[in-house]
Amino acid sequence: MRASTLFARTLREAPAEAEVDSHRLLLRAAFVRKLMAGVYTWMPLGWRSLRKIEAIVREEMDAAGAQELRMPIVVPAEPWRLTGRWQAYGEEMFKLEDRHGRDLGLGPTHEEVVTPLVAAEFGSYRDLPVNVYQIEWKYRDELRPRFGLLRAREFLMKDAYSFDRDAAGLAASYAKMVEAYRRVLDRCGISYRIVEADPGAIGGDTNHEFMAEAEIGEDLFVACENGDYAADLEAAVRRIPEEIATDGLAPMTEIATPGRASIQAVVEFLARPASEMLKCIVFDGGGRTVAVLLPGDREVNEKKVARALWPAPVRLLEDDEFAARGLVKGFVGPQGLGRDVTVIADRSVRGGRDWVTGANKPDAHVSGANINRDFRVDRWEDVTRVAEGDPCPRDGGRLRIGRSIVVGHTYQLGTRYSSPLEATFTDEDGSATPYLMGCYGMGLSRIVAAAAEQHHDDAGLVWRKAIAPYHVVVIPTNMDQPDVVKVAEMLYDELLGLGVEVVLDDRTDAAGVKFTDADLIGYPIQVVIGARGVKAGRFDLKVRSSGERFERPIAEAASFTVEQLDAAP
Amino acid sequence: MRASTLFARTLREAPAEAEVDSHRLLLRAAFVRKLMAGVYTWMPLGWRSLRKIEAIVREEMDAAGAQELRMPIVVPAEPWRLTGRWQAYGEEMFKLEDRHGRDLGLGPTHEEVVTPLVAAEFGSYRDLPVNVYQIEWKYRDELRPRFGLLRAREFLMKDAYSFDRDAAGLAASYAKMVEAYRRVLDRCGISYRIVEADPGAIGGDTNHEFMAEAEIGEDLFVACENGDYAADLEAAVRRIPEEIATDGLAPMTEIATPGRASIQAVVEFLARPASEMLKCIVFDGGGRTVAVLLPGDREVNEKKVARALWPAPVRLLEDDEFAARGLVKGFVGPQGLGRDVTVIADRSVRGGRDWVTGANKPDAHVSGANINRDFRVDRWEDVTRVAEGDPCPRDGGRLRIGRSIVVGHTYQLGTRYSSPLEATFTDEDGSATPYLMGCYGMGLSRIVAAAAEQHHDDAGLVWRKAIAPYHVVVIPTNMDQPDVVKVAEMLYDELLGLGVEVVLDDRTDAAGVKFTDADLIGYPIQVVIGARGVKAGRFDLKVRSSGERFERPIAEAASFTVEQLDAAP
Repeated sequence: MRASTLFARTLREAPAEAEVDSHRLLLRAAFVRKLMAGVYTWMPLGWRSLRKIEAIVREEMDAAGAQELRMPIVVPAEPWRLTGRWQAYGEEMFKLEDRHGRDLGLGPTHEEVVTPLVAAEFGSYRDLPVNVYQIEWKYRDELRPRFGLLRAREFLMKDAYSFDRDAAGLAASYAKMVEAYRRVLDRCGISYRIVEADPGAIGGDTNHEFMAEAEIGEDLFVACENGDYAADLEAAVRRIPEEIATDGLAPMTEIATPGRASIQAVVEFLARPASEMLKCIVFDGGGRTVAVLLPGDREVNEKKVARALWPAPVRLLEDDEFAARGLVKGFVGPQGLGRDVTVIADRSVRGGRDWVTGANKPDAHVSGANINRDFRVDRWEDVTRVAEGDPCPRDGGRLRIGRSIVVGHTYQLGTRYSSPLEATFTDEDGSATPYLMGCYGMGLSRIVAAAAEQHHDDAGLVWRKAIAPYHVVVIPTNMDQPDVVKVAEMLYDELLGLGVEVVLDDRTDAAGVKFTDADLIGYPIQVVIGARGVKAGRFDLKVRSSGERFERPIAEAASFTVEQLDAAP
Repeated sequence: MRASTLFARTLREAPAEAEVDSHRLLLRAAFVRKLMAGVYTWMPLGWRSLRKIEAIVREEMDAAGAQELRMPIVVPAEPWRLTGRWQAYGEEMFKLEDRHGRDLGLGPTHEEVVTPLVAAEFGSYRDLPVNVYQIEWKYRDELRPRFGLLRAREFLMKDAYSFDRDAAGLAASYAKMVEAYRRVLDRCGISYRIVEADPGAIGGDTNHEFMAEAEIGEDLFVACENGDYAADLEAAVRRIPEEIATDGLAPMTEIATPGRASIQAVVEFLARPASEMLKCIVFDGGGRTVAVLLPGDREVNEKKVARALWPAPVRLLEDDEFAARGLVKGFVGPQGLGRDVTVIADRSVRGGRDWVTGANKPDAHVSGANINRDFRVDRWEDVTRVAEGDPCPRDGGRLRIGRSIVVGHTYQLGTRYSSPLEATFTDEDGSATPYLMGCYGMGLSRIVAAAAEQHHDDAGLVWRKAIAPYHVVVIPTNMDQPDVVKVAEMLYDELLGLGVEVVLDDRTDAAGVKFTDADLIGYPIQVVIGARGVKAGRFDLKVRSSGERFERPIAEAASFTVEQLDAAP
């Protein structure tokens, strides 16, 4: 490829809206262009990188025995209603009507399509296991798309779906996919960790995220200082304090707390620590009132609440809804809540007693509120957010919080989809048994951004060979000098003949511009043909990742370039 | 690949709704499965064929100097409003709103995205020409999706867009693409003809369709018996009769025609031929009344009318709209139509005189109506439909009508998009000049169906090697016989080792089932390992396309298979 004709021009400056390095550099290097919020055009350079990742994913999925197919992007609403996801995704799913008024969506994942499909084709236990996958664009109408490819509304995903007869089969299918994911990310040169995760809108039980470490990552994870535990912050748990003795409980007494409608205000007013307060946060869970209790020094994890109430859509109660439900905003306490309210307590509430909490009337709290005696708990759940320094659930070590980019997510779904969709196979004994499913997502466009985050410097991108758009750039420093051009053209032809993915920067721009662009675009190897060098029969080579520079005889140019390329990461 | 695990099972019967051979066979052979009307899942076999076509298209586009990129499927409405296509496509474009209420569409083609993109990157005459393409799913909400992949609502398309500085450049870019299209279709084994075509909703001027011949094709074309002219029926023209002399015109006289509101009724009532009647068909063109005149024995071509009025949306006037516009349904004549009505006459109207036409009041016609004297014509256009036997516009030979499947469509757009989108480049003299564009569409999923239509027999599909999902099937006739299985497995391994795309039919089904499936799926080469053959040290081979059968020593199995495969079409 000749740089003069290569479609897309680099930019000196990134648009102000680009907040993170990957976004800035991918725009500046002309890998992508924005069409609208969270929706990008892939320019030839970016597209080549993305297609290389696609090829790696395809190879590893095929090697793991998964079979490629391709499902529609536009999907009918009906099966999504059966699984509850039409409601659960809500506005995050792009929805439309066709000309006949039929409800359609743009698929965010495809369990609702693949499950009936497999049931129709592979209806016998003899057919199992089977794992099918596709590499296709997915859609999520993110509330706030940002960070370029990281939180996009259109993104390229590999989604695989395994169907097994029994739990052992599912575990084996799952393990194969985890192994394949490791190979893909290793080949792409991504540093990552595998963590326990929250299943989110997909549902199911065991699931893991593949997190590419990145300072700017929006996905927070928790890891024990001793290395024996790692989890997505949304899923992370801490060691629960031991249950406290309940002898000699204080009596429950009302305290006037005029205008103190927040934990912080009560803490200051009563001069008692937040850990003695019982927070009572009210949600609407599918129309039902849900009170969530946790110690006043902890934050609620709304995703955990949502998971506990799955598949009902869950939201915080609006201020103006409290009165109609008999509640006083800022002064809610669990004592006296009726049976129409579901009371969920965080497990750590068992570790406290004699709580200060709202008195269910304006400007008043109570102290000495205790479980069973003064209020009931319908369900014990883990609903708090883990904080830096919390004790590890495994060994009590300190938990630390880190940032990352989730590039893969694997789920053991079990019968989460096969049951509502009535997708069953005939087992050996003739019974109709729902498939045990797994699903396995990998964000290919995100891998491009993650690679850019992990491998760049101030000058630009630093591609690993496996996913670099091109491997070598040949830079004649001056297109006005026939000798220079001739040598560069010959080397370009020779490298092409050797099967090297090479760009000849034949633009008439100044050498400095070409060097800057070469660094910015991040070709693994830069070869410079200069006037002085040509006279002396020498050329220069720079390895982008290490910054190493070499000067060698022109006669060795092609072979030395290939040698350095082979050695480059 | 082993047939026992290959995902998707063949069907004995096709669903009743499948009306044409390609649809029936692609369903039965498990190449595709329907998700909903006009929307299909591509199963592993179909996906492999489609991806092979994709690879051929990519190779030929790259070889022609086009550069691959990838534009979003979800597109914002704004640029579509500027070009008029948001309205022009109407319900045929899938439209949706995002969560913030912004109008979006699913792209049917991408001129509105690519034009500003190129203008932003390649803004100088020095950058031109450039041709960019993508291979991506496209969307059209067809009123009546049918014939499987032929009229689908989601379909895979290659769309390329060329940008040139001047007409000579555009012509050269266009010629390159036509050449690339020929190579793609030749390589895919498609018989086709190139015809002049109607630009439809894309607009522009010179354009050609690549029509795969097929008896069931929905796309009608016209070809001269002498081979010097071929065109899409919608675009076809006939030789126009010469202008008639206007001396001694008859006077215009009113005739009572009680209840005769159709040409046919007037013909019978007056006992005069339809060719003496002047048909006056009334349209609404973007809110304006448009009267279209043509001889009574001709049919109007609504697409030609739409093209003449582009980009205004055009529709026939509804019955209940005539009165409000001062017209009498069934008795409209051009004489006395006000300036608020645009009068378009077909060019052939110049070949007649003394017309019988409506009197613009109920139950009356006039005779002796003549151009200029009695009525005015605002525009002369070609708006009639060509009929079987009409004279060829080139040599007057008989035109015949044939059926086909359009698999490609190339357009010289000129400034059709660059003007409304204000996409200009800086020319050598510093002036801002709109790009001269071409666009080039090719239906990849349609090629699969066209290939199936052109290459099948009663037993099933007959794939050309270039796009067959697999090349060879090895059929052990009986999986209970260890000798048979052993020979088949060895041959399978040997062929895999030679890089042959081979399926081992290791299912426990009867040999007859396997033979039927091999014919249905259409592997180019079938190799049969039977019990008697193994005993005798022989195997059987069948070439699917010719039906030729061979029996050879087992020792030569791999080499003979490869030899026959090489020789197969």
